[in-house]
Amino acid sequence: MVYYLGMLGIVAFSVTGVIAAGKRNMDIFSIVLLGVVTALGGGTIRDMILDSRPVFWIADLTYLWVAIIAAIATFFCVRSVSRILKLFIYIDTFGMALFTITAMQKALSLGNNYTVSVLMGLITGISGGMLRDVLTGRMPLLLGREFYATPALLGAILYALLDQFTPGFNSAWLCGVATIISFRLLAIHYNLYYPRWLTYNCDEDQG
Amino acid sequence: MVYYLGMLGIVAFSVTGVIAAGKRNMDIFSIVLLGVVTALGGGTIRDMILDSRPVFWIADLTYLWVAIIAAIATFFCVRSVSRILKLFIYIDTFGMALFTITAMQKALSLGNNYTVSVLMGLITGISGGMLRDVLTGRMPLLLGREFYATPALLGAILYALLDQFTPGFNSAWLCGVATIISFRLLAIHYNLYYPRWLTYNCDEDQG
Amino acid sequence: MVYYLGMLGIVAFSVTGVIAAGKRNMDIFSIVLLGVVTALGGGTIRDMILDSRPVFWIADLTYLWVAIIAAIATFFCVRSVSRILKLFIYIDTFGMALFTITAMQKALSLGNNYTVSVLMGLITGISGGMLRDVLTGRMPLLLGREFYATPALLGAILYALLDQFTPGFNSAWLCGVATIISFRLLAIHYNLYYPRWLTYNCDEDQG
Repeated sequence: MVYYLGMLGIVAFSVTGVIAAGKRNMDIFSIVLLGVVTALGGGTIRDMILDSRPVFWIADLTYLWVAIIAAIATFFCVRSVSRILKLFIYIDTFGMALFTITAMQKALSLGNNYTVSVLMGLITGISGGMLRDVLTGRMPLLLGREFYATPALLGAILYALLDQFTPGFNSAWLCGVATIISFRLLAIHYNLYYPRWLTYNCDEDQG
Repeated sequence: MVYYLGMLGIVAFSVTGVIAAGKRNMDIFSIVLLGVVTALGGGTIRDMILDSRPVFWIADLTYLWVAIIAAIATFFCVRSVSRILKLFIYIDTFGMALFTITAMQKALSLGNNYTVSVLMGLITGISGGMLRDVLTGRMPLLLGREFYATPALLGAILYALLDQFTPGFNSAWLCGVATIISFRLLAIHYNLYYPRWLTYNCDEDQG
Repeated sequence: MVYYLGMLGIVAFSVTGVIAAGKRNMDIFSIVLLGVVTALGGGTIRDMILDSRPVFWIADLTYLWVAIIAAIATFFCVRSVSRILKLFIYIDTFGMALFTITAMQKALSLGNNYTVSVLMGLITGISGGMLRDVLTGRMPLLLGREFYATPALLGAILYALLDQFTPGFNSAWLCGVATIISFRLLAIHYNLYYPRWLTYNCDEDQG
């Protein structure tokens, strides 16, 4: 189950990498490479920090091929889908949620405590997209005004609590993923935001 | 002693991460995350290159909590401090000096020679701030006109020499840190710079 | 032989790092540091992902000194060479080709299969230059309109095929390197490009 979730996350990030790359005049192979780097980047950083060897896509080549196929498929579909940029943040949210929770599971299975696993979840979920945004010169989603890191943190904490206090409950991961996705979608649609005293506003500073 | 120095460096870089992030309309959690990444980033890269496992903030969670608390405290203080950007380069200098010397100590204690330890000191001292600047879209301080890498190199070489030739001298680290900080502050205040033949100037090229 | 090829690649990337840095008003030591990071960055990422310890430039300091000397020499020569930017993409191509093939050899010698070694070749060949471009704020060459990743892929696949099916053939690496360099040079000079259906063009999207 965790395995297929990981694959879904790979597909989602590969798709966002292609969409992000597609806005620049690039050829199919460079675009596919960027999709693959986006899809495998977060997990590679996770495995290097946790010293989990070999790195997941070397241990199981399926991840690599799924990322490549998803990127190629996206390349050919992306032209026929209008409003692709609106879809972009939804797919990114989906992949980020899956990666956050599966990274926590991996960190926990390697014997780390809950604090480390929450931070590894956040780093893994966010760094693939960060890499994509830095490489393509986009403003990282983390720096945007919408909630990005907060839903991931809430879902990660919920998953950690459920995993610790309800050992028999098999859908803890689902609750974590659902929390991240629904909270971020609500934030995007209803323009939810922190109260003024929990944000730093430049205008306020200058005024 | 080295331990508390490391903590001070963590605090300094966490603060600069928050200040750098605070100029964009971000919420408290994204800002804290950026502070934590800035504070832990350089040491994480050091530990991954040197294969020192587990990574320092997984081995001792105190580093992580210190970074988080420093980031939160900075978030609430930063609005009341005017001329924060002037402070920014001083705090960055302080953290960079501490990280350069403590990274050298770690590299040496792992059995590396002085050449490797000097380069690891430079990489560790500079990469946390580099990560912060790339993620927030600032121009990296390394690329600025002020001396940045040179004071770190001089302090690192001085520390290496003292450590090698004065085995009984316990304040070698202090000489290294003081050299880095004072040389960089002098450079900022008195506009010290390399002679023309040791810099590359665009205007010269075009003229 | 492979050893000296690696050194040549180090020299080439160190030179491009200095040229890229030289366009900003930087001092000699910051420029040399950027050259060294460009030269050693790709291989360091390769060794960290493949868990090949110690990292190559710690195991053999010659790489580090070659990178430093190449960077210093470039710094003093670069002013007298006009049309340096035209040379820049040729030297980058040369280093990228050497790094791609030597990284494949290293990955294969560590027991990885051909698929992993091709991807490691691409990552190693491209990431040093990527690091350089992100740190100096240049647009990464990968995102440019010219073929960049495609020649590396073709050369890598050719090398993998030759290595697999002609065990006695000692010049497989040369064929790989020559394929990458000649294909990229042809692409630059004759403006070779993928047919329209294999590229994503923004204008097409807007029209």
